[in-house]
Amino acid sequence: MSNSALVLFSGGQDSATCLAWALSHYEHVETVGFSYGQRHRVELERRPIVSSALRQLNPDWNTRLGIDHLLDLSVLSEISDTALTSDTKIAMQENGLPNTFVPGRNLLFLTVAAALGYRRGINTLVGGMCETDYSGYPDCRNETLQALESALQLGIQSTIHLETPLMWLDKSATWSLADKLGGTDLIELIRTETHTCYLGERGTLHAWGYGCGECPACELRARGYEKFMA
Amino acid sequence: MSNSALVLFSGGQDSATCLAWALSHYEHVETVGFSYGQRHRVELERRPIVSSALRQLNPDWNTRLGIDHLLDLSVLSEISDTALTSDTKIAMQENGLPNTFVPGRNLLFLTVAAALGYRRGINTLVGGMCETDYSGYPDCRNETLQALESALQLGIQSTIHLETPLMWLDKSATWSLADKLGGTDLIELIRTETHTCYLGERGTLHAWGYGCGECPACELRARGYEKFMA
Repeated sequence: MSNSALVLFSGGQDSATCLAWALSHYEHVETVGFSYGQRHRVELERRPIVSSALRQLNPDWNTRLGIDHLLDLSVLSEISDTALTSDTKIAMQENGLPNTFVPGRNLLFLTVAAALGYRRGINTLVGGMCETDYSGYPDCRNETLQALESALQLGIQSTIHLETPLMWLDKSATWSLADKLGGTDLIELIRTETHTCYLGERGTLHAWGYGCGECPACELRARGYEKFMA
Repeated sequence: MSNSALVLFSGGQDSATCLAWALSHYEHVETVGFSYGQRHRVELERRPIVSSALRQLNPDWNTRLGIDHLLDLSVLSEISDTALTSDTKIAMQENGLPNTFVPGRNLLFLTVAAALGYRRGINTLVGGMCETDYSGYPDCRNETLQALESALQLGIQSTIHLETPLMWLDKSATWSLADKLGGTDLIELIRTETHTCYLGERGTLHAWGYGCGECPACELRARGYEKFMA
């Protein structure tokens, strides 16, 4: 078991699974979240609830889980509000990405986390990036994160290491990983306490959890859960 | 002459020289600055003053200079305020860097600028990083910035390009570059209107400009100016 890790923790299914994974692999685990006026703000509200539930699930996890850091990245909404040139607007529509899309968000999250980790004496960063359910976000790809790891090692600290336990898993395999880490109790915790819906709606409790049930994030989560249960 | 560039512009000597360089090399130039509760806040106050002075110096520059963006990176002070582990504290003292040091700041600035540039349709980022007067900041080194460029190209946009016209210049050569770009008028503008002092003091007007005259930044600026004039 390695020493310590800092987990990028948003309160969603993927990062909650990563947190459980880190609590099973590191002696000391801290979490970091980012506030940037996100539409799915309810996700942020789930963070302390999910953390507490993980503490109650496993006494070792309770001992290992340290400080949570919530940092302000309102710069993301500032960039999102910046007037687009018409060229860029067209390019984005071709991409199928929304006009409010701020590219490279994961690069920003990881760079900020690396600086925070440096000050906390933590060299391992854990994030839920995944290229299997690739949705047009190139900053989730393994190749991108390897290049960023090099830049962080050169620019901040030679020992920084990025861990992405979900990189090669599909959503069904992510549910299986949770099952392996914490059995049906963890599945139930993730199903009922985490939030993934893009619209920020808790909605009613579906088989796969709460949410609007119609946005791409809910659809992906639902399909993954169905496949996992099959 | 290439199309457009986004200049990281703090209001200091280096970034003012970079802005003059960009105005001589690109048809359309925008600027970006970051507000993060910096001690040398006076630097930020110089930004519009320096920009206006550059416009007045050269009609072409006036035509080419577009929008200025000022973005909130208060996350830097949040990280700086984060409690240090004792391990990290010791490591920082050995480095000779202050306890408030947030590593990788230039990685963060450039990543945010790349996202902004994407939305503005600008692929070239210009920054005043320099490894000649290397002061223990590994995120100013060329090797680091090349690694970051790769990460930005993979994670945001394949055509992103970082330009660092001061990378191999010492402070005296930076004054010479200003001389080449805009003659004695630009030298005088940079000497009297830009701000470099770490302590954020305007102080009195020395031969090399305003500032406390004693901090490392003032000392470097003064020595460079003396060498340039010799």
